[in-house]
Amino acid sequence: MTISAVRALTFDVFGTVVDWRSSVIAQVEAVATAAGVTGDWAAFADEWRYDGYIAGIGRVVRGEAPMVTTDVLHRAKLDELLPRYGLAALAEPARDNLNRAWHRLEPWPDSVAGLARLRTGYIVSTLSNGNVSLLVNMARHAGLTWDCILSAEITGAFKPSPRCYGEAVRLLGLEPHEVMMVAAHKNDLLAAAKSGLRTAFVPRPLEAGPNRTVDLTPDPSFDVVANDFHDLATRLGCA
Amino acid sequence: MTISAVRALTFDVFGTVVDWRSSVIAQVEAVATAAGVTGDWAAFADEWRYDGYIAGIGRVVRGEAPMVTTDVLHRAKLDELLPRYGLAALAEPARDNLNRAWHRLEPWPDSVAGLARLRTGYIVSTLSNGNVSLLVNMARHAGLTWDCILSAEITGAFKPSPRCYGEAVRLLGLEPHEVMMVAAHKNDLLAAAKSGLRTAFVPRPLEAGPNRTVDLTPDPSFDVVANDFHDLATRLGCA
Repeated sequence: MTISAVRALTFDVFGTVVDWRSSVIAQVEAVATAAGVTGDWAAFADEWRYDGYIAGIGRVVRGEAPMVTTDVLHRAKLDELLPRYGLAALAEPARDNLNRAWHRLEPWPDSVAGLARLRTGYIVSTLSNGNVSLLVNMARHAGLTWDCILSAEITGAFKPSPRCYGEAVRLLGLEPHEVMMVAAHKNDLLAAAKSGLRTAFVPRPLEAGPNRTVDLTPDPSFDVVANDFHDLATRLGCA
Repeated sequence: MTISAVRALTFDVFGTVVDWRSSVIAQVEAVATAAGVTGDWAAFADEWRYDGYIAGIGRVVRGEAPMVTTDVLHRAKLDELLPRYGLAALAEPARDNLNRAWHRLEPWPDSVAGLARLRTGYIVSTLSNGNVSLLVNMARHAGLTWDCILSAEITGAFKPSPRCYGEAVRLLGLEPHEVMMVAAHKNDLLAAAKSGLRTAFVPRPLEAGPNRTVDLTPDPSFDVVANDFHDLATRLGCA
């Protein structure tokens, strides 16, 4: 069995482990309500994520911008969004606190218990583009127990750069085929596979909300496809 | 109170959290007994630690040797020690497995429960010269639950280089005065303090065995002195 050598699971986090969208909408809405401002906070969250974070990562990966932390990417977009949504008056430290909404995301219903099961049989680590402090704070907030926090900030490159996967494997003291990338996103898994990692696809149909299409079709090359982390634990032989 | 701003505790590991000496003696002795070889395995462990690891770190910190992982430092010394102690015949993979004795160290009696108490109030992280995989494997072996694995391998410099403490603080997203270094070793704490961290001294009188003197006298500059991790938890206000 191709996956019998796997010793460690590395997890994409935003969207795969936590429901960033509902969490961010709720936190932005709470700030706006306190300020007496109404608006489309789902659109705010989507702009923040896709036009801010995802686009910013892409510029770094393509070499068009220098490496920065996710906190910095989030903050740059937040400062642009707030005036457009009637929240220009939001001052420090409330603005910094809202930027840290991404440190306080809620897990999917199966994440905490599924991860605990997986941890009985495998080293479980993050492998996220989020910065270390974001991931540490999120884990404590959400009750996620990781053996290790690995991040683009540590590997020196954002996913899907090969360096991100390669450095993570090296830091875990393993060979690529002993590490399985777990993600809800095909591009992450296809890039991991190019670096020799095994792959587990856990589609999260609710990640992107009603206005965006999520690609839920697994690639034939994926080693495992699971409905959620409980299903993944069962498929990987965890009690 | 000078320590009321502390948000994260960073722990020295070898000697402070785990009893490396008893653990290594036991593992070397088991290998030697299986090979029918007798010897002074305490002396073996001490040479491995002090003439191998500690001396090797010193050469890197002084710029006399390139940065390598702790596994590499341990292996170089092991390969030198085995023939001198009648174990030249030890072949791979047993030799590699013995080198990983340092991944399987036992905690002090208070470490697991004390750390769990401290984690209720603070981010708890390693800040060790040990490499990441060593620390991850040790945590799983010993039942230690860390929020984060920080290491010289991640910061790019061994303790007591200022870069090691400074990078750890930066990765945690905190200011130096919000991080407290916890160690049984004065030089580690004095170096951390120079980088602006707070300091907690937890002397471990049994670390070095009967043939070496351990300096148990706290420096007057230390912010906290505790008998063990339970005492530290109480002094830091953890339930």
